[in-house]
Amino acid sequence: MSLQRICYDCGARTTAPVARCDCGEPLWLDTDYGPFDWSDTTDEPGMWRFEALLPVSRPAGLAAAAGGTPLLSETPLDTFAGTNVHLKLEGEHPTGSFKDRGSALGLAAAEAGLAGDVDAVGTVSHGNMAMSTAAYAASTDLPCVVFVPDDIPPERLDVIAQFDPTVVRVAGDYGRLYEQTLEQGPDQGVVFLNSDVPLRVEGQKTTALEICASFAPDVPDALVMPVSSGGHASGAWKALRELEDAGAIDEIPALYFVQAAACSPIADAYDAGKDEVTRVTGGDTIAYSIANADPPSGTRALRAARDTGGAVVAVDDDAIRAARRALAVEAGVTVEPASATALAGTKQLVGRGLLDSSDEVAVVLTGTGLKEASSTGTPASASDDIQLASVEEYLTEFAGAIE
Amino acid sequence: MSLQRICYDCGARTTAPVARCDCGEPLWLDTDYGPFDWSDTTDEPGMWRFEALLPVSRPAGLAAAAGGTPLLSETPLDTFAGTNVHLKLEGEHPTGSFKDRGSALGLAAAEAGLAGDVDAVGTVSHGNMAMSTAAYAASTDLPCVVFVPDDIPPERLDVIAQFDPTVVRVAGDYGRLYEQTLEQGPDQGVVFLNSDVPLRVEGQKTTALEICASFAPDVPDALVMPVSSGGHASGAWKALRELEDAGAIDEIPALYFVQAAACSPIADAYDAGKDEVTRVTGGDTIAYSIANADPPSGTRALRAARDTGGAVVAVDDDAIRAARRALAVEAGVTVEPASATALAGTKQLVGRGLLDSSDEVAVVLTGTGLKEASSTGTPASASDDIQLASVEEYLTEFAGAIE
Repeated sequence: MSLQRICYDCGARTTAPVARCDCGEPLWLDTDYGPFDWSDTTDEPGMWRFEALLPVSRPAGLAAAAGGTPLLSETPLDTFAGTNVHLKLEGEHPTGSFKDRGSALGLAAAEAGLAGDVDAVGTVSHGNMAMSTAAYAASTDLPCVVFVPDDIPPERLDVIAQFDPTVVRVAGDYGRLYEQTLEQGPDQGVVFLNSDVPLRVEGQKTTALEICASFAPDVPDALVMPVSSGGHASGAWKALRELEDAGAIDEIPALYFVQAAACSPIADAYDAGKDEVTRVTGGDTIAYSIANADPPSGTRALRAARDTGGAVVAVDDDAIRAARRALAVEAGVTVEPASATALAGTKQLVGRGLLDSSDEVAVVLTGTGLKEASSTGTPASASDDIQLASVEEYLTEFAGAIE
Repeated sequence: MSLQRICYDCGARTTAPVARCDCGEPLWLDTDYGPFDWSDTTDEPGMWRFEALLPVSRPAGLAAAAGGTPLLSETPLDTFAGTNVHLKLEGEHPTGSFKDRGSALGLAAAEAGLAGDVDAVGTVSHGNMAMSTAAYAASTDLPCVVFVPDDIPPERLDVIAQFDPTVVRVAGDYGRLYEQTLEQGPDQGVVFLNSDVPLRVEGQKTTALEICASFAPDVPDALVMPVSSGGHASGAWKALRELEDAGAIDEIPALYFVQAAACSPIADAYDAGKDEVTRVTGGDTIAYSIANADPPSGTRALRAARDTGGAVVAVDDDAIRAARRALAVEAGVTVEPASATALAGTKQLVGRGLLDSSDEVAVVLTGTGLKEASSTGTPASASDDIQLASVEEYLTEFAGAIE
């Protein structure tokens, strides 16, 4: 069987294991979990404590380790951002990013027979999602195929290949490849867990569920997240709608999404007051993992921001670098540049008066900096070079210089 | 004030903020937390749920995110290891390793005034501990100095430098530098959180506390951990002793420690039936982060293994590679080579009859593979290269080949 899907936009339903509505917009799962309050969370590990709001229970294997990431408050970054920030450390996942939530849910659903006839899983990605899908598939009996662009750097291929999926380099338009696999996969029994498909979005819901649980019975004023394909953004919106429908929260936090200024189709559409996101010609940015010029769930993300009273903003590379450095130097948190956009965006939103200093703001740091900690821009150098015999003298001077 | 320390060996006590007993052996904190049972754990995040067994409560900042790592059971690795393995994913820490527990406790104690007069923190390391100490210090008001060997590779310097500590390259014997900083630091108000000092060991206790809590009211039959300096091993031993003293466990799991065969002073001493670990001339191993030829708490680790009915074993690089690959390919778990020794050691212990197939074995995977995922040995290559127009044909063949 396959779970019923519904279009957030036109309301059409289908039980076919497809990702797109006939109207062209992305589908998500048509779910009605019934009444829910915070006492309905269980002792299951990580994201599975919300099994009452998920279509499948915790499976064995790696999926059990997804979710349950820390929410870090009371950091010096409140000053940097100008408001009360609560850092959701999504990098603390087995493969280092938020993608693990969707991979875990997708594989669990496929194994439970809820994704149609499935002989294998696949994805189209050259980064976090490829690594995540391959890892979670490795802990199941399902083979995994990963389509990557033909110009993928060798070091990224290594990272994916360690889990031994079938990796296929594809020459041609990447956005087209993304959609084509969704169209052609089901007939071949290959469920593609691309970034905005219904099963992945259902897993990505749990980021917002955990954030809201941390604030319960209160609600945060806002969630600020990077946005790329719009899949994670869609998951957050769906989570908040379900919590409100179930009566678990009495007001919906505003959803703010952040893009890199060099490639910001959703922010552009937001600024222009448009109802649809259209393809742009993106430029280079250090936040390359969110540089999606033609986001498949862009319009849905735009709707999520407007519907919740949020916004979509863009931050330039200098602001991203400053936020990334502040996270490391002031809070000891290492993130990839794409994640730092969330903090940079928060600072901008405060500066523009869209958030204020009394707000409680959950800042979603989507991925660890450990995968690329050495590529901080300029190579580091030591402060000093000394001989062993000079250590005591050095310590004396060092301590003497501390104010 | 400074917490009282005691020698595990001769029983001498001191309130001086020192790391070594007059007898030469390492000190640990002299603690008596009174009665404890599992219901005394709290709702505090991560390792701080065991505040009843720690000298300090959760501070603000990054320390709140330490501990609380998943314990993954029911994986296909039971077959690989030949017993029931439970994988403790210590890589799921802000800086990707178990070191964060000791850094968190050390910084919390220093900030709470429990480590003597402290103006700054320091460490001697070129790997996980340097990164961890620098990160946790960054989220406090305490300056941090990191002494590294003068031949440190630039990429490792980058990883440490992102948190902006003072980094000092030191020419001279590394083991001597380690001890010298412990001797000279206190007089200068610099508390060195080196790997086997009392405060770090007290934090490292929480790995074993969490494992035992996961099994409560039962106890696992064994814990298998990599061993390098002996600090983490000492922490595990201290945790088990305290749990037994408090009546929370009625039998102590066996502690098994694993070294790389190329540099195995503790395993050598164990095999030779000696009571003391002496310096060896170590060779190269892919598990470089545990290649400690002169472990400062080696003798204490040896005692821990013997006292709990465990052992110390060594595994060669081929066995480490096989275990690392099995973790990735069969369970989707990426670890650094040093961590894979724990699984390789478990397999060896089963082969030698020291563990059997019905045992419940906690395997401590100390650090993530994300920091060096691309250095798996041989560069990966794609399985295939195709054109976009061939995707459907490829999928048909791929699906058809699945048995």
